[in-house]
Order: sequence, then structure tokens, then C-alpha cells
Amino acid sequence: MKTKIIIDTDPGQDDAVAILLALASPELDVLGITTLAGNIPLEKTQSNARKICEVAGRKDVKIFAGASRPLVRQLVTAEEVHGDTGLNGYDLPAPEIPLQPQNAIDFIIETLLQEEIGTVTLCTLGPLTNIAMALTREPAIAPRIKQIIMMGGGYFEGGNITPVAEFNIYVDPHAAHVVFNAGLHLTILPLDVTHQVLTTKKRIDAIRQISTRSSEIVAAWLSYYQRHDEAKYGTDGAPLHDPNVIAYLLKPELYSGRHCNVEIEIASDLTMGETVVDWWGVTTRAKNAYYMRDVDADGFFTLLTKRLSHLPS
Amino acid sequence: MKTKIIIDTDPGQDDAVAILLALASPELDVLGITTLAGNIPLEKTQSNARKICEVAGRKDVKIFAGASRPLVRQLVTAEEVHGDTGLNGYDLPAPEIPLQPQNAIDFIIETLLQEEIGTVTLCTLGPLTNIAMALTREPAIAPRIKQIIMMGGGYFEGGNITPVAEFNIYVDPHAAHVVFNAGLHLTILPLDVTHQVLTTKKRIDAIRQISTRSSEIVAAWLSYYQRHDEAKYGTDGAPLHDPNVIAYLLKPELYSGRHCNVEIEIASDLTMGETVVDWWGVTTRAKNAYYMRDVDADGFFTLLTKRLSHLPS
Amino acid sequence: MKTKIIIDTDPGQDDAVAILLALASPELDVLGITTLAGNIPLEKTQSNARKICEVAGRKDVKIFAGASRPLVRQLVTAEEVHGDTGLNGYDLPAPEIPLQPQNAIDFIIETLLQEEIGTVTLCTLGPLTNIAMALTREPAIAPRIKQIIMMGGGYFEGGNITPVAEFNIYVDPHAAHVVFNAGLHLTILPLDVTHQVLTTKKRIDAIRQISTRSSEIVAAWLSYYQRHDEAKYGTDGAPLHDPNVIAYLLKPELYSGRHCNVEIEIASDLTMGETVVDWWGVTTRAKNAYYMRDVDADGFFTLLTKRLSHLPS
Amino acid sequence: MKTKIIIDTDPGQDDAVAILLALASPELDVLGITTLAGNIPLEKTQSNARKICEVAGRKDVKIFAGASRPLVRQLVTAEEVHGDTGLNGYDLPAPEIPLQPQNAIDFIIETLLQEEIGTVTLCTLGPLTNIAMALTREPAIAPRIKQIIMMGGGYFEGGNITPVAEFNIYVDPHAAHVVFNAGLHLTILPLDVTHQVLTTKKRIDAIRQISTRSSEIVAAWLSYYQRHDEAKYGTDGAPLHDPNVIAYLLKPELYSGRHCNVEIEIASDLTMGETVVDWWGVTTRAKNAYYMRDVDADGFFTLLTKRLSHLPS
Repeated sequence: MKTKIIIDTDPGQDDAVAILLALASPELDVLGITTLAGNIPLEKTQSNARKICEVAGRKDVKIFAGASRPLVRQLVTAEEVHGDTGLNGYDLPAPEIPLQPQNAIDFIIETLLQEEIGTVTLCTLGPLTNIAMALTREPAIAPRIKQIIMMGGGYFEGGNITPVAEFNIYVDPHAAHVVFNAGLHLTILPLDVTHQVLTTKKRIDAIRQISTRSSEIVAAWLSYYQRHDEAKYGTDGAPLHDPNVIAYLLKPELYSGRHCNVEIEIASDLTMGETVVDWWGVTTRAKNAYYMRDVDADGFFTLLTKRLSHLPS
Repeated sequence: MKTKIIIDTDPGQDDAVAILLALASPELDVLGITTLAGNIPLEKTQSNARKICEVAGRKDVKIFAGASRPLVRQLVTAEEVHGDTGLNGYDLPAPEIPLQPQNAIDFIIETLLQEEIGTVTLCTLGPLTNIAMALTREPAIAPRIKQIIMMGGGYFEGGNITPVAEFNIYVDPHAAHVVFNAGLHLTILPLDVTHQVLTTKKRIDAIRQISTRSSEIVAAWLSYYQRHDEAKYGTDGAPLHDPNVIAYLLKPELYSGRHCNVEIEIASDLTMGETVVDWWGVTTRAKNAYYMRDVDADGFFTLLTKRLSHLPS
Repeated sequence: MKTKIIIDTDPGQDDAVAILLALASPELDVLGITTLAGNIPLEKTQSNARKICEVAGRKDVKIFAGASRPLVRQLVTAEEVHGDTGLNGYDLPAPEIPLQPQNAIDFIIETLLQEEIGTVTLCTLGPLTNIAMALTREPAIAPRIKQIIMMGGGYFEGGNITPVAEFNIYVDPHAAHVVFNAGLHLTILPLDVTHQVLTTKKRIDAIRQISTRSSEIVAAWLSYYQRHDEAKYGTDGAPLHDPNVIAYLLKPELYSGRHCNVEIEIASDLTMGETVVDWWGVTTRAKNAYYMRDVDADGFFTLLTKRLSHLPS
Repeated sequence: MKTKIIIDTDPGQDDAVAILLALASPELDVLGITTLAGNIPLEKTQSNARKICEVAGRKDVKIFAGASRPLVRQLVTAEEVHGDTGLNGYDLPAPEIPLQPQNAIDFIIETLLQEEIGTVTLCTLGPLTNIAMALTREPAIAPRIKQIIMMGGGYFEGGNITPVAEFNIYVDPHAAHVVFNAGLHLTILPLDVTHQVLTTKKRIDAIRQISTRSSEIVAAWLSYYQRHDEAKYGTDGAPLHDPNVIAYLLKPELYSGRHCNVEIEIASDLTMGETVVDWWGVTTRAKNAYYMRDVDADGFFTLLTKRLSHLPS
């Protein structure tokens, strides 16, 4: 039986690769893709999600628009990483797939109430605004969620948008606070993992050599996407954040981590959005998350490249 | 032409009197009553709103249930003031008016999008969770709201739930932060006003002497409701908070205040939910609210008593 | 037997009047005057203290310089109230009284250790930096202090430097936090009191009519000093803050207040330095201060004027 | 010419090794050792410093007692690491070296004012209370300090007392805030460095094989000291924190790091005392510290062992 997932996302090139990885994986049943403001404004993220599904040849996927701003703070975006369209690197035509008329938050609630309890996994690739709004609006969904697997946070790696905050959590720390305190089964793929998963020249070349249109597009996106972090970190390639969420779902043995307490800083401007991870168990706070720290990066890219090769040419 | 209002509320005896005052006022067109968790949990506030409309003989009023918890913090309630039902003082039968199936937040959004721009006033008697969720979900409603008139906050009077925070703001300070930063026409009836409007024995007697069932109920509610604050403040009667919102709408000349900046404290536990009112203009922060400070209390009770006497016996 | 006091101060015209009131009072034995940065920088406050003692004809008073900056925050001053010298309104010559070579903080410690336990009262008219530094440096002094009587804070009146913070506490909230948590007998004369004590024309005239040099100087100072707050508050006269500390010591029956908990906000920029007064007993926090709320203002000015008339002409 | 240093410390076994390393180094002129509360209360740290100098056969060293508590917060100690005496592992007799009567803070101020400008280095091994109190009391010392080299903080390693705060900074974050904002030449040896410098069995054995009384004592201390962190981190040996400060002074080429901005969190309980290091230059905040990240650990232990072998047997 397929694993039912909802992908909540703000694409972004790395979100795009995550979505393609999911659509290329027969084990997964993508019930819908819900979008929100994050890397770029909502109008572009929902449009990008539709374009990405077309790259995969999957016009059947349902795509929804949700939150256009965070719960409490002003929206911060990251065009300096992703370019003004969010998918700079390869121009795609306006999408033909329609945007679903239903709000993403309602779709999440309705799906969780309709599907069998404990069968739907939420894969979050962006800020947690949609998920928090769904939980606040309809608390009955919390016990029905099988698990949330999220890209977000960082501890040993510090942050990427501020010295101590990772972008997804920083954009909506209050939403993260709600999600981390909702009693859910929560698995986190933080910067500690994703900074081990670099888009080296060799790895991009391997994707390009699939020689399909979609692999060409992915290679072009990643070549654009990596320039910012290569300059910042002096590395060969950039961290490929979001696909780790899908890879974890497909092959969790690639990852290792700990069950521990993670709290979100929402009081101080200096540390706003920090994920305070009690990795060493120095507090008495209850464990609320499976925090991944290590990854088999080559195993990840082998999986990714192989799956992308299955997309229709 | 009637003034169209939505009453957003968490009844509570004083909310009940406010609703009755609105329903007794021919100038007002109550488009709907939206409820949320606050004084007591949502299940009771929505039920109470339906009972209150029945007391007014108004089975036509549409009543909606919205947020069952604040945006970010855990719910705090006030049964020590209102009793376990929220309407202790007079037992009412289970309501016959149905709860509308639509979510309160959707009703607010839909109404604002459908009604002519700048014609709908939101009267808020509880925490601002419903309003904030509506604004976050559909930012397009902000410029369509005519004004918000709210009971909440305090400055010269300090707070009532903590030394510096008033209950409605304290329960959901993050929602208040969203509403106060949304660029709306905002009028505040704070503790500074409502602590001048005491339910003295003489005033309750005047209401009781209307000698209708509804006046008898109101008098019974207020007799219960006032015991907490009479003990706390040593006054004859308790502050009758929420009806000031409706009274302001009916007769603004009863009130005086200033246009000034009001910020909501959301960073510190000690002062969480405080309304920081720049009454004296000592900061350069932009003015964002009409903050009322004084009221003609006798004028208020004359208005209230007269209107209540128009309710059907 | 005289009451032994140390006056800790940052003069300032109202500090000056407080010092003159103390020096004019035979019940008080001023062991020393310790100065610090506050209304104006330290170099001027220590010099002003010396000038003020000369106005009183008291070249015997020992004057010490202490903290030139707050414990943690940057110094904020109030030349807009007091003028650039701190004593604008009447020009005084450079003082002849020498500044004591000992640091003010050492003097406070040494005096408390030498004098009989429980006999020395600290009268603080400015930020609490000197007192906090003495307590931190020599914790043994805490149980030796008879009491601290301070001008600082506000609750029903709000703040004067920010919407919620009074100047003395705002300048060094961390020092205030230390003092309020040191287990001392603490009496507070806040804005709630001092805003009732206005330098009306009639009251200044009464002082001027003493017709001594010192009364002429006081009248000139107050005429300058009051212009800022008269413009701000639209009152006849300004709040005469600091002399209330000495007046309380001389005639406590002029004042009324409550024993309650007072905490200092040091976490949030928005409310930094607020005195969170649990006047209504809504928390379970331990009572740590006698917080004055009301004053017999006419009684205060009668006392002040009479005492000033005893200063040598 | 020798490098003049003041060692500010709260011994602690690792402080003890740092002091011994300094006393064993002919390039250094230890002007004094100033103690304060930290790992254990002041009464023990000053006594321990005297014992340690006796182990080195250096009864000429001047030892001073300073702050017995942090500036603002309550004292937190670490007996679980160091044992109840702070020097558990080897019992030493009561010290014969007298405690200097002068307060440590006064000694720091006086020394900096007397010595030639820019010639005195402060080596801090504990919380920064003494240094902050000296800077606040006598701001004129700031430009006279050659540099401060401190053990404190952490970024890639997180914290050790809380998930994000290192002990020395956490104990007095306000003092750290003062020191980091004083415009000083500041070099930091954080957990990122010290967690690379482990007291492995082999390294302790090498020290023991010096076969002097002092080497035997050091080996015994470290054997006790390491048990806590070995259990926590599962490593062979514990991080030998404080001697890195002296080793950096002796042989800076063992270390590498960056000039960057470091801010101290003092607003939020969750992240209190965190050193927010802008290692990647993602903010525009001014660079204020040389933050070390890497160390040649073998080189460090070679240096340490060789120098300890020079101590008199």
C-alpha cells in the first residue's frame, strides 16, 4: 500500500527537486501539494508548484494555495538564494494545471478528517504557517496525523538566515512553536543534515546525464541555486535541503539522529526562530522530536538520481 | 440605513448584555455572531450566544463557532468571574437556535468580501483570535473593514488578569499584535473606561424594574457577575466591560479618548499581553488606535436600560 | 536621635530641592551624598550636589562620585527636562566643597559596615546603579540597611520616559532588578504619588516669598524645571518628584499605599524598565515593597516651604 | 620582556591547570590572580587559587577575591563537574599564601591605571563579573587593556549548561554583554575549540609520567574532572577548557578562527547566555571578537606537558 502524503511547500529549486523526487516514487501517494509564502510570495509558490508537476508530467496532482503571510511576523523571503521567480535557472511556461479553488488549510483539515486515522504524513518544506493554522482551526486533526517530516532548524550548524536561525523556522517561528507543541510525531531534517548533502559538480553531472528534459531542468536549477551558498561557504555545491524530507520517507536508514526536546525561540529578536535542541539531554523538558544529525550523502544522491531517471522523458 | 455589524464574542455575562443591547437597537443590523474560546471554552461560548439570542426573542440571528484556542499560547479561561457556564446567575434551557455549520472565520471573510467595501463594523468582545485568523488567511479583507471596536486592554487602570494585562488581550496577545498592526480603523474600550461603568445596586435595580423576562435575566446575571470584582476592588458593582463596545457604536459622544499608538507586548512573560499605550506621545511610533479613556457612566446606563426595555417581554 | 541617611542622587532640580529639604531638617543626619549618572552625566551630578550643599550653607557635607554608567545598558539622560547643567534656572558658581576621593560605592559599603546595624536609611533619587553595585560587591550590607526609600516607577500613571517606564528605573532596570530582589525594606514613591505634587504658580510663589537666597534659587529652578511637564501634561506646574522621598521620611502620614509585589521588566525592549506592581494581588509573588499611591499634596508643600524657610539666608 | 597578565578565575580543576601552565611559563608575568564565584562559590575559588599557587611553589603570587555573585542573576555553580571543593581528585592542605586584602575589582582597576597603557592582558577563565564591574566602575580602564583572552561561549558545539549556553557566559550573561560591548580587543576560546582538546588516557598518562608532585596532582585532578563529560559525551577524556586561554597566549599559531560579531543573549530565558556568533557574516553588526574555532590538540598537549614538567618538583 502506498504511503499517503501531503507536501506543504514554498518552491524554491530545492522544493522542486523534493516534489519531483516524491512524484517519481511509486511508494508515495501525493494527495495534494499545499503552498504558502516563504522563499518567495504565495502567488509565485503556488504557480511554481503547478509548473513542477508539469515537469514531472503529472497534471493530475492537486495544488492548493494557503497562507500568504506568517501568523504574527512580517513575511521575509529569500530571492537572493532562489532568484526572483524562485525557480531561476530554467524558464518554464505558465502552468496549465489549475490551482484548486479550496484553500490549502481547508484541504489539509478535510483530508485528515476524511482519510483513515494515522495514515497521512505531512511533508513540510517551508515555513509551518499552513500546518499551524490547520491545527489551530481544527484541533481534531492532531491525533489523526501519522507524522510530520520537516525540513527546518539547525543546531550544530547554527542558522542560515541569522547566526542562529534557519530560514523556514525564522519566517514563522510562532507557527513552528505551535507545531512543536502539538504532541505530534515529528521528524526534523535540519541544516545539520542538509549541509552534508552538497550539490557537487559531479553529482549535478550525474543528474544531467539522465538526459531527460526533467533531469536537464533539475541540473539547470541546481546550477543556479548553488551559486549563493558556494560563495558563502566556499564549498563545491550547495546544501540540497528539502529533498531530504522525501528521501527520509523513502529510505530512513540513510539518516541517524536522536529523540530529544526541541523548543522554538519566540521571545528574543536576537535569537528569534532558533531551534533549541536538547541533543545532550541537559534539561528535563519532554522529548518532542526526532532530530536527525547525520546522513549518508552519497546514498542520498544515488537514490535521488535513480528516482529522477524514472520520470517520463 | 442600519449599521452592519458582526459581533465576535466569548459570552460571558457582560458579553451577553452587549449582545442584548445590540439586538435591542434598531440602528444596528447584526449580520452574525461569531464565537471563540475566551472567558470559557468554545463549546460553551457558542451555546451561550445561541441562548442569549433566544432571550432577545431573536431566533433569526446567525451564530458561528470559530477558534477553540489562541494562535500561539495555551488557552486561559475565567470561570472564577463568570462561573462554570459563563452565564451563571440565571439558568437557561439548551438553545433551539442551530449553530451555523460554517466556521466563524470563514463567515467573517465571506461577509467582508460580499458586503460593500467599508460598510461592516466588527465589534469584538473577546480575544482577537478569530479576527487575526481571518486577516492572516485572507489579507484582502483588511481594507474592506469599516472599523473594529473592541473591548480590551488597559493603561491607567493596569490589567485585570495580570498586574499589567487585560484578559482579552492576554488570552491571545499574538492575535492582538496582528490586529493592531493591520492598518485598521481601531477603537478601543479599555479597562480605563469600563472600570468607570459599575453595576451598582441602583443601576441593576433600574434594569430589574423593566420587569420583563429579559431584564430579570440581565439583573440576575449581573448580580452573579459582580461578586468577583466587588470583592477584589471593594466597589459597589463591577465593571460592565463589553456593552461599552455597542454603546460606543450607538452613542460615541458618551466617550472621549485619543488617537495614539498602542503596541502589544508579546516578548516577555512578566508583561505578556500588556497594551503599551503612548497616551502622552513620548515615542515616534505611528498612531494606530483610538484609545478611549473616559465615559459618561450614567449616560451609558441610561442608554442600556432604555434599550433593554425595548426587548420583547 | 537623628535618622542617619545617605542620599543617592543625580541632581537635577527636583533632586536639589530634595537635598535642601533634607539639609533643612534637624531630624536627619546626612552621612553623605552619593552621586551617579542619570538626569545628566556624573561629572555634572557630583558637581551639582556640591553646589546644592553650598546653597544650604553646608560645606561640611561629604559628597562622593559613583557610577558613570548603568550596569548593562547605555546611559540615557534627560537634559530636555533639566537643561544642560541639570540645574538650569539659576546659575551657580563652581563649587568650593571638595569632591571626596573615595568612590561613592565604597562609601556606601563602608558606612553600612561601620554604622550600627539597621540604623542607616538610603534615600535614592536617581537610578539604582550605585546601590546595586554596592550590594553585588558586598552582599553583607543588605541586612544592615534599615530601609531604602526611593523615587521611581509608576503604575496607574504609566511611565514618563516611555509609555510604561519611569526614568530612574528605565535608566538602569538591571540595577533596579537587583535592589528589588535583595530582601530589603523598600518604600517606593512612584509617579502615582509625584504626579499629585505639582509645582503650581501659587506654591512656587509661596517658596519665593520666603525671600532668602536659597528660596529664590529654588523658585527659579522650579520655574525652569516645570516648563517641560507643563507643556506635556497641560497642568499648572510639574510633578516635584524627588523631595517626596525626604518628605516621606519626615512625615510618612502624608502618604498612603500598599505592601505588594513589584517586579522590574528587564527582558523586553517595549516595556523595558516597567515597574510591574501587583497592586490588586492577582499573582502569588511575594510582597517586596511598600508602594505609595496617594499623598496629601498640600501637606507636602506646607512641609517643604516651612523647612526651606529654615535654611540660612 | 615578559607579557603581563592578570588571571581572572573560579578554580575548578581546568582553571587550576591553566594557572599552573601560566606559572610554568617564563614568558608570562602573572601580576595577580583575581577570583570570583562561578564553578563554586567565592570562598572556595579564592582558597583554591591560593592552593594552586602553592602546588606551583609560587607563594609570591598575589591572589584577590572579587564578586561573590553575578551582576543581575542568581549564582549557578557546577559542583556536578568539579566536585564540592572544585578541586576534587587530590586533597590539598589549607593554603598558607594569604588572601590579599584588596578587592579583586579594585586590583584590576588599579593595575590597569598604573601599568603602562596597552601592556596588561586579562585572561578570564570564569564568568565575567569582575571584569564587567571594573569596567562599569572605572570606564577609563577600557582603552588601557591590551586584550582580553577568555574561555567562554560556543557556537558549532552548542552549549554545555543549557542546550545553547556555555557555563561561564550563562552564569553572568549581563557581565558578558558589558565586556562584549566595551570596544576591547577580545579573543574567545569557546567550546568549539575546547571540545577538541580532550584529556585522553594517553595524555593524562604523559602528564603523570613527569613524575613530579605537581604532575601527579594534575593527573589526579583530571582523572576526577573528566568523569562527568566522559559519561555525557561518551568520549575518551573531557574537554580541557581553561588552559586554552594560556596556551593561546603562549602559542597562538595552535589556534585558528575568525574576526566576527558576537552578541550575548540576555532577553530570553530559553536562550539566556547564548553567544550568538556571526561566523558566516550574515548580519551587518560590527565585528567585536576574534572567535577561535580550531586547535591543534596534540600541539596543545605537547606544550602543556612540557611546561608542566618545568614546575619545581
